[in-house]
Amino acid sequence: MENKGVVVGIIGLGLIGGSTALRLRKVGFANRIVGADHSNKNIAKSIELNIVDEGLELNELAHQADVIIVAIPVDASKKLIIELLNTARKNQIIIDFGSTKSSIAQAVRNHKNRSNYVACHPIAGTENSGPTAAFDSLFNEKVNIICDKELSSNNALDTVLEITSQLGMRPKFMNSKEHDRHIAYVSHLSHISSFTLGQTVLEVEPNEENIFDMAGSGFESTVRLAKSSPSMWAPIFTENSENIIEVLSAYIANLEKYKLMIAQGNEEALRKAMKQTNRIRTVLEKEPLS
Amino acid sequence: MENKGVVVGIIGLGLIGGSTALRLRKVGFANRIVGADHSNKNIAKSIELNIVDEGLELNELAHQADVIIVAIPVDASKKLIIELLNTARKNQIIIDFGSTKSSIAQAVRNHKNRSNYVACHPIAGTENSGPTAAFDSLFNEKVNIICDKELSSNNALDTVLEITSQLGMRPKFMNSKEHDRHIAYVSHLSHISSFTLGQTVLEVEPNEENIFDMAGSGFESTVRLAKSSPSMWAPIFTENSENIIEVLSAYIANLEKYKLMIAQGNEEALRKAMKQTNRIRTVLEKEPLS
Repeated sequence: MENKGVVVGIIGLGLIGGSTALRLRKVGFANRIVGADHSNKNIAKSIELNIVDEGLELNELAHQADVIIVAIPVDASKKLIIELLNTARKNQIIIDFGSTKSSIAQAVRNHKNRSNYVACHPIAGTENSGPTAAFDSLFNEKVNIICDKELSSNNALDTVLEITSQLGMRPKFMNSKEHDRHIAYVSHLSHISSFTLGQTVLEVEPNEENIFDMAGSGFESTVRLAKSSPSMWAPIFTENSENIIEVLSAYIANLEKYKLMIAQGNEEALRKAMKQTNRIRTVLEKEPLS
Repeated sequence: MENKGVVVGIIGLGLIGGSTALRLRKVGFANRIVGADHSNKNIAKSIELNIVDEGLELNELAHQADVIIVAIPVDASKKLIIELLNTARKNQIIIDFGSTKSSIAQAVRNHKNRSNYVACHPIAGTENSGPTAAFDSLFNEKVNIICDKELSSNNALDTVLEITSQLGMRPKFMNSKEHDRHIAYVSHLSHISSFTLGQTVLEVEPNEENIFDMAGSGFESTVRLAKSSPSMWAPIFTENSENIIEVLSAYIANLEKYKLMIAQGNEEALRKAMKQTNRIRTVLEKEPLS
């Protein structure tokens, strides 16, 4: 795709959509960016922050945009993407940036315009939401997972690879089923563990001053994701319920093991279990243990 | 206590002991700092890093130091503190910086030199350990919990308050039983949730590249504490087992509730639960929700 003259349409002017727009404008990928959002406040804020040039109704955005990026909660995106595919023009590209992939993959699998669509999951985010949370370096050095690439046209895939690169990411390819299983472990579980941690502490600490005074940076770090948006995460959890239930069961089983080791005063077993998990340091840092 | 000429003895030259020494030297509280550690390597490294002036055997350190700060794993500190109290001179001050307090409080309760002892828990730390992890601003703007202060002499308590202030902390007072119960929620649970999260993910992701590529900053944040030292944490978990088991049971019960809501596809209940927990943002930041 020739970039000059590309109109990019962003549906969902939150952290992800907003950060995408800011970066694509900065690097000059788009010469015009239009946006749609269910909230007029978000549209006004996005214009004010120079995230989009104009807010449009969905129909009008679909009419004007060469590339449409969908960055809304996963419960709403499936229906919307089918509608966008129904009216897709030749070479119009529809990109999904949602956090679950299997359910939508099944829904569009046999659509006549399936090849106009590219399923992505940029692995980036913060605990903040809305257009004011957006910033142009959100995706720097992150990974964009592209699912089922063989079902997208070469033109669509090339454009997504260029956008991936312009956003500062590197691509990783997998099928949507694999994606949903892995992401349940490395992302969805973290969110649930963090939400339930926050809940557990809030329930027993009516005197919040104790939390503030006694919580070290460790608590802040583990509970950070409990600040995340319920509107975004509730649909993710239910869309990916099968994988998440498997993951939660494994997590609870490990917690029960710790509980037993602690009840038995089995320090040796605790030490061994923790030492094995210390390996996460090398996995995350790709550096030898210090 | 007149600071000029104070000799401070640090037992345990790790993150906490080392950071204490670096700061007390920087602010001029001590004119000489001596250290003891079971590892000769840690002693050599601490001298090299100017953390201590000299490494000494425990007996010699106890003989020379006016103020002794004990910063070793809690399973070893109880026995050591009793020994130090046995030979304590008038006005010699023995300070414990460990993370659990009830068990040692009971052990020293009727000691003839109990008033020479002050039980502290500075709420500060990182996931790193050893003298190389130490830095002089570790305690800045943190809280030092001082337990059972009525059992310490005025002289000992005044010195600890001065050290607290010199380290950049503010004091908070509570009894050791209360301390152990609260800290199980706001610190010990975070560590177990993080260790078991790391374990669960490592168990199902033999291809570690997937973890590295697919884990966002959220996973890194929730799993950070899984890098912590097993030698430090195993004894904490067993010393505080009664409270931790209560806390783990409450946490597992909440995880089971999430699992049920997800299995039932009950988005409304999920949203409600998450929204209630979002309150943790205001608790931690002491700012209104954005």
